[in-house]
Amino acid sequence: MVPRLAPAWPAWLFRWRAARAPGASGQPSARDGASGARPGGGPRRFAGASTPVRRGSSSSSSRGPEVVLTCERYPVQRLPFSVVSAEDLAAFERIVPGRVVTDPEELEASNVDWLRSMRGCSKVLLRPRTSEEVSHILRYCHGRNLAVNPQGGNTGLVGGSVPIFDEIILSTALMNQVISFHDVSGALVCQAGCVLEELSRHVEERGFVVPLDLGAKGSCHIGGNLATNAGGLRLLRYGSLRGTVLGLEAVLADGTILNGLSSLRKDNTGYDLKQLFIGSEGTLGVITAVSILCPPKPRAVNVAFLGCPGFAEVLQTFSTCKGMLGEILSAFEFMDAECMRLVQQHLLLASPVQESPFYVLVETSGSSAEHDAEKLSGFLEHVLGSGLVADGTLATDERKVKTLWALRERITEALSRDGYVYKYDVSLPVDRLYDLVTDLRARLGPQAKRVVGYGHLGDGNLHLNVSAEAFSASLLGDLEPYVYEWTAGQRGSISAEHGIGFKKRSALGYSKPPAALRLMRQLKTLLDPKGILNPYKTLPAQA
Amino acid sequence: MVPRLAPAWPAWLFRWRAARAPGASGQPSARDGASGARPGGGPRRFAGASTPVRRGSSSSSSRGPEVVLTCERYPVQRLPFSVVSAEDLAAFERIVPGRVVTDPEELEASNVDWLRSMRGCSKVLLRPRTSEEVSHILRYCHGRNLAVNPQGGNTGLVGGSVPIFDEIILSTALMNQVISFHDVSGALVCQAGCVLEELSRHVEERGFVVPLDLGAKGSCHIGGNLATNAGGLRLLRYGSLRGTVLGLEAVLADGTILNGLSSLRKDNTGYDLKQLFIGSEGTLGVITAVSILCPPKPRAVNVAFLGCPGFAEVLQTFSTCKGMLGEILSAFEFMDAECMRLVQQHLLLASPVQESPFYVLVETSGSSAEHDAEKLSGFLEHVLGSGLVADGTLATDERKVKTLWALRERITEALSRDGYVYKYDVSLPVDRLYDLVTDLRARLGPQAKRVVGYGHLGDGNLHLNVSAEAFSASLLGDLEPYVYEWTAGQRGSISAEHGIGFKKRSALGYSKPPAALRLMRQLKTLLDPKGILNPYKTLPAQA
Repeated sequence: MVPRLAPAWPAWLFRWRAARAPGASGQPSARDGASGARPGGGPRRFAGASTPVRRGSSSSSSRGPEVVLTCERYPVQRLPFSVVSAEDLAAFERIVPGRVVTDPEELEASNVDWLRSMRGCSKVLLRPRTSEEVSHILRYCHGRNLAVNPQGGNTGLVGGSVPIFDEIILSTALMNQVISFHDVSGALVCQAGCVLEELSRHVEERGFVVPLDLGAKGSCHIGGNLATNAGGLRLLRYGSLRGTVLGLEAVLADGTILNGLSSLRKDNTGYDLKQLFIGSEGTLGVITAVSILCPPKPRAVNVAFLGCPGFAEVLQTFSTCKGMLGEILSAFEFMDAECMRLVQQHLLLASPVQESPFYVLVETSGSSAEHDAEKLSGFLEHVLGSGLVADGTLATDERKVKTLWALRERITEALSRDGYVYKYDVSLPVDRLYDLVTDLRARLGPQAKRVVGYGHLGDGNLHLNVSAEAFSASLLGDLEPYVYEWTAGQRGSISAEHGIGFKKRSALGYSKPPAALRLMRQLKTLLDPKGILNPYKTLPAQA
Repeated sequence: MVPRLAPAWPAWLFRWRAARAPGASGQPSARDGASGARPGGGPRRFAGASTPVRRGSSSSSSRGPEVVLTCERYPVQRLPFSVVSAEDLAAFERIVPGRVVTDPEELEASNVDWLRSMRGCSKVLLRPRTSEEVSHILRYCHGRNLAVNPQGGNTGLVGGSVPIFDEIILSTALMNQVISFHDVSGALVCQAGCVLEELSRHVEERGFVVPLDLGAKGSCHIGGNLATNAGGLRLLRYGSLRGTVLGLEAVLADGTILNGLSSLRKDNTGYDLKQLFIGSEGTLGVITAVSILCPPKPRAVNVAFLGCPGFAEVLQTFSTCKGMLGEILSAFEFMDAECMRLVQQHLLLASPVQESPFYVLVETSGSSAEHDAEKLSGFLEHVLGSGLVADGTLATDERKVKTLWALRERITEALSRDGYVYKYDVSLPVDRLYDLVTDLRARLGPQAKRVVGYGHLGDGNLHLNVSAEAFSASLLGDLEPYVYEWTAGQRGSISAEHGIGFKKRSALGYSKPPAALRLMRQLKTLLDPKGILNPYKTLPAQA
């Protein structure tokens, strides 16, 4: 059934391996990875900064300067995993015939993260179509002690989705089939590689919505969304994936398939194993299929975009909003003036309201256009009349709703054109939320090009971003651990929704006590005793 | 600080222990437990069946015939834990001075479950006030290999909350302090022993509601609610505890305190350890404190109580309801005619509508009384006009709302007065939900006194109950595995919200594949290597 003959593999694939003494741990120094013999070092296409790079719509390889190898930028040591051999490639070819990618140019987009801040040097990417193929691959890698980097749409922002060294990239791109949709219950069952936007379209045609929406929807995979426990724009209304995911299928490190693809709203039969995989960033198992509860599509969606004179007014607008809009409130987002300048400058978007220190986007979703409009107009009258809001605009038709949302959703993209970006995604008590931005501006002074704050205010989630002309270790030193200490001082979380990945793992201790870190390690050892699944991620490096 | 002198312990406490040869496994046969020397065999108070026994408002010891020891009724072997000694009692007295209960009469209510279907023979109950005391107790028990049965309000329905043999009962009753409530975010932090109804009162006074409500609210503890991942009456609106619980503190088997009492809405810092304890029925750790997100109290609550001519009409009423009431729908419950007869006969409640084969309770909760009334009246007009509903009544004032809810909420209580009750709590596709009741009635014939069906239709959750004059092994044989096989045939769950406890553990395989059972066992071994926490529960007995 599977071809027995291995294809011929290009010689460069094995250069790195040949350079290492056989029998040694195979652990290269950071220097090795950057040598002329760097695997994956084929030609690269670059384009000017004017190429559109909307997150979710284009590959990361089309812009900006060369990305430095992660192992050169950060102090990280390769763990003693095996190195992929010709025999391994032949074995993979038997498992996923014709879907073993070794072409350096093709690998480029998967070795570099969307932010172009990290680069791995994987030499092989596998494209399974079924859970059984994933199982075969992992069983093989487990036996051979080969490290694996599961990868969905590669839109993650903390370096969790790209290899650090030469991990095999296991892509879910071809696992993109909808398995079933139940149009009474709204239960959607699909493979992990389905793109969020395509799923949205699929269920919206049937009168439902996916309870998750985020800027990267055009290319992020639902499996990756679960693996990072993505929050996004609809969390305020529909709650977290921990509540809306009904079941999932995951493949464990040793190849065991754990089928928990239940479509039931309630199931209290023993430990809820799916929770182990939600938010564990591919370190405990590879999510291969998902069952998720989709709520009915609201009949009426309205968006108000408002300018506020200060952050205190933003907070009061939020309280007023919760009281007056109640159950139809579906999003409450904020952005500062610097964010508006970013989307104006880099994306040529126009502000729909007069210039203000802060902007707020309020979305309502409900079942009666008339009732919702009445509630919303009462709210707008109140906030405009009381001076909480200086100027505002309202959208009810889909096109204008999208235009207003773009101002908020495309900030990440605008930032990526502003230079090297240091990203922080923290949970804080709402009343202290913006103080971190102000404090940091004062602390950094002209070192930073911009310090901006925006995010999901309704969830207490601040996206704090600092841009600079290029990566600078000294600026990083001024940011960290300062931002983490500040956050921990408010009993906040150092990662609200982006996860830990590679970039935040040394900061985990600011949000998790030692007993929790110990238990995390024990769980990792239990589920992945050889540590082959997404190594160097989520858990702090062992001392 | 703690008294050094151990008080004198009554001699009967050690009778059982003395009867066992020291050095033996200490594993009594079922027979032993029922001998004249049965520990905890003190005098008992019994009252006639006319005493009110509302779940959540009175102790289980006030009614019915003697409850048979669990180890006599079921084939279960005591595991080789140590037996509590005088030295142990002295040690406990040092840890929780004056809060070591050994009086058999006092122990009675904690040895017997609310349904009066199970009886353990614990000789000691401990009443810690703090997490530190729980930690000391567990560290001691771990060292001594003593089994522990964590107990909240003892309102569970699957035998998870009472000892099976002589496990030490660790009661959360004195851990009943509210730690904090944030009246902007709605984050409530409290100890595990807070009674749900008291928490409700606490947050309602501040304009919020607890996102959980259930019939046993008058005595169930929030820690126990989390340990069973209780569903209840508000799940349709606010989702499961897996989404609304923000954090928790748990004490592990070895006494380690795991403090995860976060009040943040979003926190993606590593594995979500709290999920391990939610729904694990005290087998992985003892929940000692809870942080839960309370939604704003709705301004308007309406309840409609409707009579439907058939189950097909119940289903159509549900679809119509979802479409027309949308975001204000907060509960959709159903009960059959037999349930109505039960509450009429045993609790003297009156039906507010004409006799019908099925009854439906629809609740709306919203922020505008006027809008909600308009939506609800449109819905009622439609369902009455189209013949989906034969008769209905509407309540908007709190007193009448409560009266209508009582018809649904007090079914469990009415059943408990009908004789011995076999309880099943299954998730099924809604369109097949009631077929199980009909099939079972035909199968059992006159063997059963009643076969009734009710539940949370909006969640696909059927409560199937069979009453008989007394426990009968032969009737049990006709029910099991039939009910489980039927449920598995529909890919349903054999426990939607009640959990597994002791009674359902042998049926777990109907809802969980072998790989999942294996992982559950591994997790248990990791977190509780000696198996001292709530033994004989949740996990199937080892072959």
